[in-house]
Amino acid sequence: MRARTAPTLEDVARQAGVSRATASRVINADPRVREAARVAVSAAVADLGYRPNRAARRLVTQAADSIAVVVPESDERVFTDPFFSGLLRGVTRALATTPLQLVLVMGKPDDDDRRMERYLRGGHTDGAIVVSHHQDDNLWRVLAETKLPSVFLGRPYADASRLPYVDVDNTTGAELAAQHLIERGCRRIGTVTGPQDMSAGRDRLRGWTNALVAAGLSVDLVESGDFTPAGGAVATRHLLERAPDLDGLFVASDQMAVASIAELAQSGRSVPGDVAVVGYDDNTAATLSRPTLTTVVNPISEMASRAVDLLLRVMDGQDVEPEVLSTHLVVRESA
Amino acid sequence: MRARTAPTLEDVARQAGVSRATASRVINADPRVREAARVAVSAAVADLGYRPNRAARRLVTQAADSIAVVVPESDERVFTDPFFSGLLRGVTRALATTPLQLVLVMGKPDDDDRRMERYLRGGHTDGAIVVSHHQDDNLWRVLAETKLPSVFLGRPYADASRLPYVDVDNTTGAELAAQHLIERGCRRIGTVTGPQDMSAGRDRLRGWTNALVAAGLSVDLVESGDFTPAGGAVATRHLLERAPDLDGLFVASDQMAVASIAELAQSGRSVPGDVAVVGYDDNTAATLSRPTLTTVVNPISEMASRAVDLLLRVMDGQDVEPEVLSTHLVVRESA
Repeated sequence: MRARTAPTLEDVARQAGVSRATASRVINADPRVREAARVAVSAAVADLGYRPNRAARRLVTQAADSIAVVVPESDERVFTDPFFSGLLRGVTRALATTPLQLVLVMGKPDDDDRRMERYLRGGHTDGAIVVSHHQDDNLWRVLAETKLPSVFLGRPYADASRLPYVDVDNTTGAELAAQHLIERGCRRIGTVTGPQDMSAGRDRLRGWTNALVAAGLSVDLVESGDFTPAGGAVATRHLLERAPDLDGLFVASDQMAVASIAELAQSGRSVPGDVAVVGYDDNTAATLSRPTLTTVVNPISEMASRAVDLLLRVMDGQDVEPEVLSTHLVVRESA
Repeated sequence: MRARTAPTLEDVARQAGVSRATASRVINADPRVREAARVAVSAAVADLGYRPNRAARRLVTQAADSIAVVVPESDERVFTDPFFSGLLRGVTRALATTPLQLVLVMGKPDDDDRRMERYLRGGHTDGAIVVSHHQDDNLWRVLAETKLPSVFLGRPYADASRLPYVDVDNTTGAELAAQHLIERGCRRIGTVTGPQDMSAGRDRLRGWTNALVAAGLSVDLVESGDFTPAGGAVATRHLLERAPDLDGLFVASDQMAVASIAELAQSGRSVPGDVAVVGYDDNTAATLSRPTLTTVVNPISEMASRAVDLLLRVMDGQDVEPEVLSTHLVVRESA
């Protein structure tokens, strides 16, 4: 007796008379589907006995044994920035109900040897979550060519990538930070940005700019940071040289914000008395800082879990849509 | 015209009339070889034009693209203990002259899912460096079965493993630490150990014991630590309850030693005035600590580089011998 082949998503779409993408949206409870399509797909699912979760689990169990978290940064950076440890904890937790092993792949993707590219082309993992993507990285091109199921954590810089991603609404987050400073009465507000070759860095600068423009304030006090404490300290020093009357500061990461507070103290300024400071991340640095940091929440753990979920669906051949999580401000002592 | 096949180590051994192992020892400048064998192998190498380095490079370049650093610990542990970041930096540096990508594989090897075992059996990497091996891990058995070229960093707990390793002389290191305390005049000397299911933990306890026995001192003041600061603090508290007259303390890692110093301060004791403290590792914690830590050097970077070297030779089919590096004491303020 020959086992009947399990029905596929294609079978469901054909029987319902809709596209594969629409069938996938219905199955994943995406609200953006017409009611008629939802009814037709649901009927086809019931009729054919299609079981998406079981199919995914079987596929994953039999054919796959690992997913890679790809971080195009030096191992030094990865091990000193709490963003990455939080992220890996989140991915590990999200993988707990699967049989998949996480492997961490670090390093500059565009080094002369292209060793990361060769590894990804080698077909050694069953999926990839790409973190901390930079403008010049050609990772998205490599991943698109290899057809390795991939999800970006943080929107890819290149719109052309068309790879699915999970992001947080960094623009709104930064707007909330700047608005908080404005509402406190700050009028000379600067920002220490993240790297401008990363979407998170650009979006946070955009949000700060939006809020200041809306309030009719000058947006000239911008200094570039690189998400490291050393970079944050240098940028803060430059801001103070340019604007000794600085009274508000949005710093695009908590690690940099802690360094900014140290620089302000060094220059004899109190926080928040002379200069109010808002960070971004809400990691342990924010609560260990003195004063404690008012900051924007970067929901790393939820992003990790959503990225794993998206990736498992891509590995199952489903169509997925990008997800953008919302964020909010946590008010503590620094502003 | 057919290209002549490059001569192999087997060809060299056959022509020299020695075993493959002996030929390998000569080529790797191992001193434990008879002079007659050395002469015969050298002649065969010259005669056949055997070029071990070139052969290794060709093999590595054409067939291999990654090695795994396997850490049977939680990602939380890996990201909070500076030992691991130091190690990964060392391995990355050592791989710089090869085309190999490092992948980091973390997690408990004996979880119900055996996901790490499945990954290692999957043949996705070309070699493995296993770190932080515990007594109950069955990793050595898995690696021996898969014949995946593997090197342990830190001697494997099970003698049966017969896998090559790079270790540091932890026993002598701990002896140096305890002797330093004895020479200072300490007479009630305790130790906070590392995990006793790891060779490093056992060897450091053995070294401390050797030195105290040789000096005719009591070896009763032993409390178990687990290489985490929290574990070190608890163990120190227990030691102080058992021996309020404690005047010397050897702590088997710097991270634990910093926690011990905090506990001693908490109990109103000065370091080194009331209790002299020696750590183990010589990582950044040792220099950031107040007082700065007298400690034993754990040459992580050199161990990483030797482990990569051994692994490349194993991947080339060469026979290799375990290597044990020596160590020394760095005297600072704490003892």
